[in-house]
Amino acid sequence: MEGLLTRCRTLSALAARRRQLSGCVGLCRCHHDAAGRGPRLLLSRMFQPQNLREDQVPSAEGRSRDLTCKSQRLMLQAGLILPAGPGCYHLLPYTVRAMEKLVRLIDQEMQAIGGQKINMPCLCPAELWRASGRWDLMGRELLRLKDRHGKEYCLGPTHEEAVTALVASQKTMSYKQLPLLLYQVTRKFRDEPRPRFGLLRGREFHMKDMYTFDVCREAAQHTYGLVSGAYRGLFGRLGLRCVRAQAAVGSIGGHTSHEFHLPVDVGEDRLAVCPSCHFSANVETLGPSQTSCPACQGPLTETKGIEVGHTFYLGTKYSSVFNAQFTNAHGEPSLAEMGCYGLGVTRILAAAIEALSAEDCIRWPGLVAPYQVCLVPPKRGSKEAAAAAALVGQLYDDIADSAPQLRGEVVLDDRTHLTIGHRLKDANKLGYPFVVIAGKRALEDRAHLEVWCQNTGEVVFLPKEGVVELLTGVQVV
Amino acid sequence: MEGLLTRCRTLSALAARRRQLSGCVGLCRCHHDAAGRGPRLLLSRMFQPQNLREDQVPSAEGRSRDLTCKSQRLMLQAGLILPAGPGCYHLLPYTVRAMEKLVRLIDQEMQAIGGQKINMPCLCPAELWRASGRWDLMGRELLRLKDRHGKEYCLGPTHEEAVTALVASQKTMSYKQLPLLLYQVTRKFRDEPRPRFGLLRGREFHMKDMYTFDVCREAAQHTYGLVSGAYRGLFGRLGLRCVRAQAAVGSIGGHTSHEFHLPVDVGEDRLAVCPSCHFSANVETLGPSQTSCPACQGPLTETKGIEVGHTFYLGTKYSSVFNAQFTNAHGEPSLAEMGCYGLGVTRILAAAIEALSAEDCIRWPGLVAPYQVCLVPPKRGSKEAAAAAALVGQLYDDIADSAPQLRGEVVLDDRTHLTIGHRLKDANKLGYPFVVIAGKRALEDRAHLEVWCQNTGEVVFLPKEGVVELLTGVQVV
Repeated sequence: MEGLLTRCRTLSALAARRRQLSGCVGLCRCHHDAAGRGPRLLLSRMFQPQNLREDQVPSAEGRSRDLTCKSQRLMLQAGLILPAGPGCYHLLPYTVRAMEKLVRLIDQEMQAIGGQKINMPCLCPAELWRASGRWDLMGRELLRLKDRHGKEYCLGPTHEEAVTALVASQKTMSYKQLPLLLYQVTRKFRDEPRPRFGLLRGREFHMKDMYTFDVCREAAQHTYGLVSGAYRGLFGRLGLRCVRAQAAVGSIGGHTSHEFHLPVDVGEDRLAVCPSCHFSANVETLGPSQTSCPACQGPLTETKGIEVGHTFYLGTKYSSVFNAQFTNAHGEPSLAEMGCYGLGVTRILAAAIEALSAEDCIRWPGLVAPYQVCLVPPKRGSKEAAAAAALVGQLYDDIADSAPQLRGEVVLDDRTHLTIGHRLKDANKLGYPFVVIAGKRALEDRAHLEVWCQNTGEVVFLPKEGVVELLTGVQVV
Repeated sequence: MEGLLTRCRTLSALAARRRQLSGCVGLCRCHHDAAGRGPRLLLSRMFQPQNLREDQVPSAEGRSRDLTCKSQRLMLQAGLILPAGPGCYHLLPYTVRAMEKLVRLIDQEMQAIGGQKINMPCLCPAELWRASGRWDLMGRELLRLKDRHGKEYCLGPTHEEAVTALVASQKTMSYKQLPLLLYQVTRKFRDEPRPRFGLLRGREFHMKDMYTFDVCREAAQHTYGLVSGAYRGLFGRLGLRCVRAQAAVGSIGGHTSHEFHLPVDVGEDRLAVCPSCHFSANVETLGPSQTSCPACQGPLTETKGIEVGHTFYLGTKYSSVFNAQFTNAHGEPSLAEMGCYGLGVTRILAAAIEALSAEDCIRWPGLVAPYQVCLVPPKRGSKEAAAAAALVGQLYDDIADSAPQLRGEVVLDDRTHLTIGHRLKDANKLGYPFVVIAGKRALEDRAHLEVWCQNTGEVVFLPKEGVVELLTGVQVV
């Protein structure tokens, strides 16, 4: 391993320049490979492994009584998030990578149904919210502020008002331009009375919100079905079981609403589910005496869920307020029929960890795992150190050559002062889908590496070429 | 062209489902191709061409006296942005695409020097800003608010306090883990007394901010040079001439500071530039009597610039306040030497348009143009309509096959009720780097297409294969 590191240093012009400086400078983080394969990612240089020990969970939320759910505890312990204030978190590098992958997936699904991505300000003028009546209705959940001229704003928790005013400003919209599906992925704000569960219920969070405009009720309901299908497709690609439940419209309003839930024990919503006909509803939408399925009259069972998505058919609730019109086929002005559709981006990450992880090991949906592969060379000074380190270095390069989709996805755990067992435990906790260990069998005539496939639970021994072949099939987004 | 559209419709399962609905539903926006080339992007379905006519610039800012610079006027006219409130803009789909490309470029440059991407909340607790003294110092430029419990926050214009507190919370940081380069790309807030110039001086804007932590002054200065080099590299890849000028440290503080400027007339900063030795300074850093270059004593000339980047060597100004320490090579605690580095993301987009565009035509840096290619088939009913429409459809597919990096980058201007001239004018205004027209020469024995290479000003006639070959070399990010 030392040999490997030395070679990296030698290759790196950056490191060479650094060595000319006074001796107090450490290694540089990235070691560019001569073949242009990109930087080698060294775990020792990443901002977070130091949180892995449980005694170092940040004190602001580290007391066990505050760690109210598994995903929050695991994400704090693994250095994925760090508290920044009540209900607000710093997202650390691994989480940012996972979030960016999730956003790419969401972009693909939204654009496949015709979604166009926009970006609206967080600062929402009070007059828009007064016009819709929500300035008062939202009460203390809205974070409000004034600018230097005394003009009032809220920090948008959703953007029905803003987007409807935006579309209403397009004075010559024709029915031929509809349906219009506008969406954004931005941070949202909600002054939760008691933020908790880490990223599951925060005051500042990332959300995908889509707003749709249609020519008539039937078309709007078709669009509603399209977006619901895209949500199902997204959770399917993530490998997450999801329940779509009839829901209340709440302060958003409208006629019809469904929530998308991941069924897990820590969920704050109670769902009534019919095992025979797939009917599901948030129990708050059912009467207290409703114990049988309204669709098939079979018995309902109850489960808890984390709400990760919410869809609303709004009708003309907002388009009538802001006069969002189009010219219909008869040349007459007509109000757009609207829908709105939310996905909790940061919440999906935490909910997925909640749903997939063991008590002490994070598991990610494969497509959004921050890094796909972690390579673990032997401990410094062990008898297999020299041969196995060379093997791991060659494997790193071979993966970059034969599985180019994994460039930037492979981490080398260069903390060779630690045992393989110690580093395997860390890798297990962080949840890389593939952990590749160069242990004693690296010294065999035909060297073998130990591959932990975390998402299937398999452990296999493969020669280097076999590892590369296995990884060639890994999908990334 | 009609034939082409009909074929798209036939291929599209989505469109087929739509036709089963009541007749009031329009076309769907995306038409997936059977060969899996992805959706065909039709201009008629995009949210913004209706703004192209000058009489439709939104009234909130449409009066000519408010349109204080070229980029603001062009971006409003072309439907790239829409005012949402004083100093706040909706970013419409083309701008979001350009911004996402710019962010990918910035990510590449920052990660190439070891930058690790994080994401910090906008809500910054007042106590952090009180600790640094900036709660009072920033005065009315800070947007401030209270939560439901009366706790005070500001909306972060920068994050020196937050990131230093974050790093200080890592109690076991070793000198071996430094340098640490953390950055984020997030929206920032500043209560400008008089927001103007569109995205050039807003109250809510997107910024890349990096914060670096080093073991000593020499190392910090080396890192300062690395980041400055990455900024130069970025502007080089964008094809933008950039001046790096000695600057004042302002409310951020520290020892040394440089601004990166695009030299354009509308710039609000005055720069003193030495033509002979490359010395540059913001004139506010020079004494009133300073007319000669401090480096070579040659005469200084003055130019105006838009500040698009700013670098600061901070020393221990913030690390001493928040006690951001590491353990040095002698096992002793030591304060980190810091730097901070900003790039105005939305501002770079507007400044690039300001620098590159003609009075009535947007020009983009090639790598961040929202779409690389616009295809213009003939007007409906013209004698070349049938043959040329088929040619354009085939070209669309051939580009996707032979230049796969351009998938999702080619727009088909299907508004065939308009003349080619009208649509060419629109394409010119929007600034696609390549506009391909199927005009009269599409009827020649060997059909030729007219290619406008907007960023070089060339117009060439090429057969379909020649167009594909030309486009194969186009780089995208």
